Amino acid sequence: MSVSPPETISEQEMRRLEELLRAAGSPLDAHGALELLRGIAAAPDTGTAGNAELWTGLFADSPTAVLRDELVRLKPLFASAKEPTSATGERTSLLREELRRRGLDGFIVPRADEHQGEYVPASAARLQWLTGFSGSAGLAIVLPDAAAIFVDGRYTLQVRNQVPSELYQPNQIPDEPPGRWIEKHLGPGMKLGYDPWLHTETETKRFAEACAKAGGELVPCDANPVDTIWADRPPPPLAPVVPHDMRHAGESSADKRRRLAEELASAAVDAAVISAPDSIAWLLNVRGGDVEHTPLPLSFALLHADARVSWFVDPRKVHPSTLRHLGNGVGIEPPLRLDGALEALARDRATVQADPGAAPAAILQKLEAGGAKLVRKPDPCVLPKARKNPVELQGARDAHERDAVAIARFLAWLAREAPRGTVSEIEAADRLLAFRRELPLFRDLSFATISGAGPNGAIVHYRVTEATNRRLEPGNLYLVDSGAQFLDGTTDITRTVAIGEPTAEMRERFTRVLKGHIALSTARFPRGTTGSQLDALARLALWQAGLDFDHGTGHGVGSYLSVHEGPQRISKVGNSTALEPGMILSNEPGYYKTGAYGIRTENLIVVRPAALTDAERETFEFEILTLAPIDRALIEIEMLTQEERRWLDEYHRRVRETVAPHLEEDDRTWLVAATTPVA
Amino acid sequence: MSVSPPETISEQEMRRLEELLRAAGSPLDAHGALELLRGIAAAPDTGTAGNAELWTGLFADSPTAVLRDELVRLKPLFASAKEPTSATGERTSLLREELRRRGLDGFIVPRADEHQGEYVPASAARLQWLTGFSGSAGLAIVLPDAAAIFVDGRYTLQVRNQVPSELYQPNQIPDEPPGRWIEKHLGPGMKLGYDPWLHTETETKRFAEACAKAGGELVPCDANPVDTIWADRPPPPLAPVVPHDMRHAGESSADKRRRLAEELASAAVDAAVISAPDSIAWLLNVRGGDVEHTPLPLSFALLHADARVSWFVDPRKVHPSTLRHLGNGVGIEPPLRLDGALEALARDRATVQADPGAAPAAILQKLEAGGAKLVRKPDPCVLPKARKNPVELQGARDAHERDAVAIARFLAWLAREAPRGTVSEIEAADRLLAFRRELPLFRDLSFATISGAGPNGAIVHYRVTEATNRRLEPGNLYLVDSGAQFLDGTTDITRTVAIGEPTAEMRERFTRVLKGHIALSTARFPRGTTGSQLDALARLALWQAGLDFDHGTGHGVGSYLSVHEGPQRISKVGNSTALEPGMILSNEPGYYKTGAYGIRTENLIVVRPAALTDAERETFEFEILTLAPIDRALIEIEMLTQEERRWLDEYHRRVRETVAPHLEEDDRTWLVAATTPVA
Repeated sequence: MSVSPPETISEQEMRRLEELLRAAGSPLDAHGALELLRGIAAAPDTGTAGNAELWTGLFADSPTAVLRDELVRLKPLFASAKEPTSATGERTSLLREELRRRGLDGFIVPRADEHQGEYVPASAARLQWLTGFSGSAGLAIVLPDAAAIFVDGRYTLQVRNQVPSELYQPNQIPDEPPGRWIEKHLGPGMKLGYDPWLHTETETKRFAEACAKAGGELVPCDANPVDTIWADRPPPPLAPVVPHDMRHAGESSADKRRRLAEELASAAVDAAVISAPDSIAWLLNVRGGDVEHTPLPLSFALLHADARVSWFVDPRKVHPSTLRHLGNGVGIEPPLRLDGALEALARDRATVQADPGAAPAAILQKLEAGGAKLVRKPDPCVLPKARKNPVELQGARDAHERDAVAIARFLAWLAREAPRGTVSEIEAADRLLAFRRELPLFRDLSFATISGAGPNGAIVHYRVTEATNRRLEPGNLYLVDSGAQFLDGTTDITRTVAIGEPTAEMRERFTRVLKGHIALSTARFPRGTTGSQLDALARLALWQAGLDFDHGTGHGVGSYLSVHEGPQRISKVGNSTALEPGMILSNEPGYYKTGAYGIRTENLIVVRPAALTDAERETFEFEILTLAPIDRALIEIEMLTQEERRWLDEYHRRVRETVAPHLEEDDRTWLVAATTPVA
Repeated sequence: MSVSPPETISEQEMRRLEELLRAAGSPLDAHGALELLRGIAAAPDTGTAGNAELWTGLFADSPTAVLRDELVRLKPLFASAKEPTSATGERTSLLREELRRRGLDGFIVPRADEHQGEYVPASAARLQWLTGFSGSAGLAIVLPDAAAIFVDGRYTLQVRNQVPSELYQPNQIPDEPPGRWIEKHLGPGMKLGYDPWLHTETETKRFAEACAKAGGELVPCDANPVDTIWADRPPPPLAPVVPHDMRHAGESSADKRRRLAEELASAAVDAAVISAPDSIAWLLNVRGGDVEHTPLPLSFALLHADARVSWFVDPRKVHPSTLRHLGNGVGIEPPLRLDGALEALARDRATVQADPGAAPAAILQKLEAGGAKLVRKPDPCVLPKARKNPVELQGARDAHERDAVAIARFLAWLAREAPRGTVSEIEAADRLLAFRRELPLFRDLSFATISGAGPNGAIVHYRVTEATNRRLEPGNLYLVDSGAQFLDGTTDITRTVAIGEPTAEMRERFTRVLKGHIALSTARFPRGTTGSQLDALARLALWQAGLDFDHGTGHGVGSYLSVHEGPQRISKVGNSTALEPGMILSNEPGYYKTGAYGIRTENLIVVRPAALTDAERETFEFEILTLAPIDRALIEIEMLTQEERRWLDEYHRRVRETVAPHLEEDDRTWLVAATTPVA
């Protein structure tokens, strides 16, 4: 496939580029180079695609300075392709026409891409392109005379602002699930299309049942009809894929592959499908930059029982250093070859393991239809990836110590500036980012900072915009939830700060949240305990007063990977994954008073063997990674037990001793005051 | 079917009985009367079959005094039929022969009967008859050259004592499940038989999968081959079925039936299968005495969407008062007619609801094979039965207040007698029963009392026998777990008492258990919270020291019904039933040091709306039903927080004020001392 250059590039410029490429020994011609450049421009600037040193290395092994300069000059011309423009009813009409042409009555448009990750590239933002909805989870269904969009409680307000309800009837899941809507609106004999690459088998089964109940049929589509009508769809991102050094990974990719392959072989499995990009990044010790805030390359892989990996990744984005790093146990193949590889496995009647809750339904269908023996099991990388090795754990500690310096500087700055009432939510978030940018090994934020003052703090997944931006004013609580990606670890912290004098109610609620936070921090528990079993510890102090919060208490965290990572989780929702040493989790109880204020206190913690001499059971406890003061102005000391006060003072002592040496005098003075013992 | 009288009954006696029956206007002849008597004698003496006033009423509406005397004289002649004699290898050989005759290679012998309850009648004690194992849960599989028995951790020692391991290889579930054994031992092409009346569909599916993996086949048997070879198998029990008065039930059976039928109708269900005897007892407001310690009649029922009930119960055991009580919304049919009723539903293409985890697989198979539309859903009685109504709750409070008097007398007696070292476990249990027998509305124990001194206290499901009977000696901990069936409620309490001076370790462990007990007692939680979410509260104080206990923290409790009742539960095992007001549960954390001592502190608690004025969520808390002192000699006061001390003193104040007025002076003096405040 060839690509036409932007109109602003002249024939003369094309010829010059051609010459520069040839001179640098590049295998690409000018058109090929522009196609690659367009893909690089389709990736976020904040990841590897924002690092010119790296991405220019994709054009030639040793690009000349003039070629580099020319590429850097050209790249911004492609930047407009990144954000889909706002949706109109016309797009939905076009989709209905396209469906009619294909003999379909309806189509399901999910937010997910082929990899079921938290972020999707612009090329996969079909839901946003069609409906205008930009949230991180959702799904639309289009029928001839009706259409609906399904979002969870986080997005009920946003969906009404972004999507005309006369075009898409808004529905809140889980109360109004898509299945029930299908049962009600799909007529007998009607065909509802779906793209089997964008749904898991688990999800597909639910849709199929709903269609059957309605007397209709769920029909897979070979080509996505949205892509057919999406004229200026951005190309898939081509952010450079770089090695993740052993100094940070702690275990070679070859060892990981061997370890996992042995498990496959002992279960008589020939190959495992790996479709989660963070699993592949972990397994191959590589990182990328195809989506926001998470350093991963979008790709697929097959891990064979002999420890070989077939990696289906666009070879143009694989940096030369990565090829050397991977060695010959990993075969790079263009993504288009995945189909053929699955067919070959099926033809050989191979036993293939795939995750029915993560892999695209298309892969399972192809394998089974072709004659492979399918073993439905979780992605084999997920559990070993969650159990961080000693090198990853030391990286996490180091990253948190560095991050703590930026956070202390930020909180000290806030303590000086905010009481004047002039600091805005955006300014605060920018300032925190600026402090982090000064830190070694910092690469990116691990998610868009939640910076909410007063009532905005009560919106659990608040994302500040120019339209919602508030000033932090005396009497406000200010909630900041932010994290960073360092080469050696991923951080995620929330602090709630009183601007001026807090009310008695704020202090009382803050202290209940803190009691829950401490209860979870100090819990010991026997091997086999799940996060679901511990969840109530973080809520009990709120429950006692008839209060609660409507989100999980803790999520898993990756190692310079996704800030939200499974399989472990601390939540009301049942979860059968036992907590094991090395697993990193967040501990983030909160309290939210709609229209008034929000409170959340979040540290990252890691499971470790408990320091007990006479334990009868193998017992675990948490090590605290995050080091930042907890606002003493918000603590009602009388509500804390002696043990809780001791915990607080000991934690603050650790924060002070670790962070103070790295601060300038003003900030240090603030930190010493902020960590003064209460007991 | 006719029955031969015991050889000890002469022709002359038969003729006399015949005359007495005729004179009393009985519809029975002498043979029929003896058959009925044999059935009554096959039921436990401790239930309705032990009450001559009741059971003689089954022979005639108004039996004459002479008939009554004669029946009472004759009954003991049948008593030997109750306990199966000990098993021999011969029985297993006979079973293998019978299987060969039927063209089967193996057979599964579960402990369960058709109703999947905790107790089975002697007629259904097939596992015990065949293998000798008398525990309350287990399963044997017999193959031509191998046989195995599967029990849980409670019974690993017992099974080795009772079952020759050369006959049945002992296996511990869940580590060594029957499925895996089948996969290993069943040869290709082999047929494993099972009785579909004795297994649920859920269970059957697991066996079928295991057989398929082994290349064999799971085959249902119309008649149970064990019954074929079991020559002197006792008849099914025929304990009198009596009404459960509205004064105790609180809601009429007609209202219950109407309420449930409306739910069925609104779900377009024509009928629901009810196979759990406690569900039927609740629905019809009847009680019986067919099994130990639980006042229920074994039977099946179909609840129709028009609120009619077809009750498949042996009409001979239905007391005349029950017929009047039931009215004409309930049709009594002999159990043999159940098959025909299921076939009729199937023929009508009816939509029938059945519980795949509780109903016999045979019922689901018959319905589905016959053409009924099967709706797999939990037994519709289970949840309403669990939510006690105000009358049942008041009954529970009253029953617990009465029970508390017997317990206080028992504990006071123990405090006086035990330090001398002469009281045995059996004597203690007998004494507690004697005190209870003096209480109004007392009917039976709700389970066999666990009375364990020293190391016997560490055996979680210990049942004292003459062989294991120990004396309570100074330095011992004595654990007593016991409950009663009163007409107005079921009780269940555990107390641990120091005999003489306890060690520091005992006090420390006891106090940790108590801290867990208090944490659960005082917890508040929002609507929607499950017992699994609360479980950790009861364990945390133990976990902090690397300790734990290997049983659930709390089970549901019936209202003059089963002392172990679902669906709610407080346990590590995930459970999706939210706790709701009116649900009664036990709160029984413990600690067990094998070979040394056991600790458990158990109260019954009931969920109620929390007394909070400014709650933001609908919040629940527990009311405590059980009233008995907690041994202060075992409490390490320094380990308790101020709140915990306050709880203890307030609880003891309530015990004292409620119970003391009903005690004689000596016991009252003891109670006042035992409930002295610690704070």
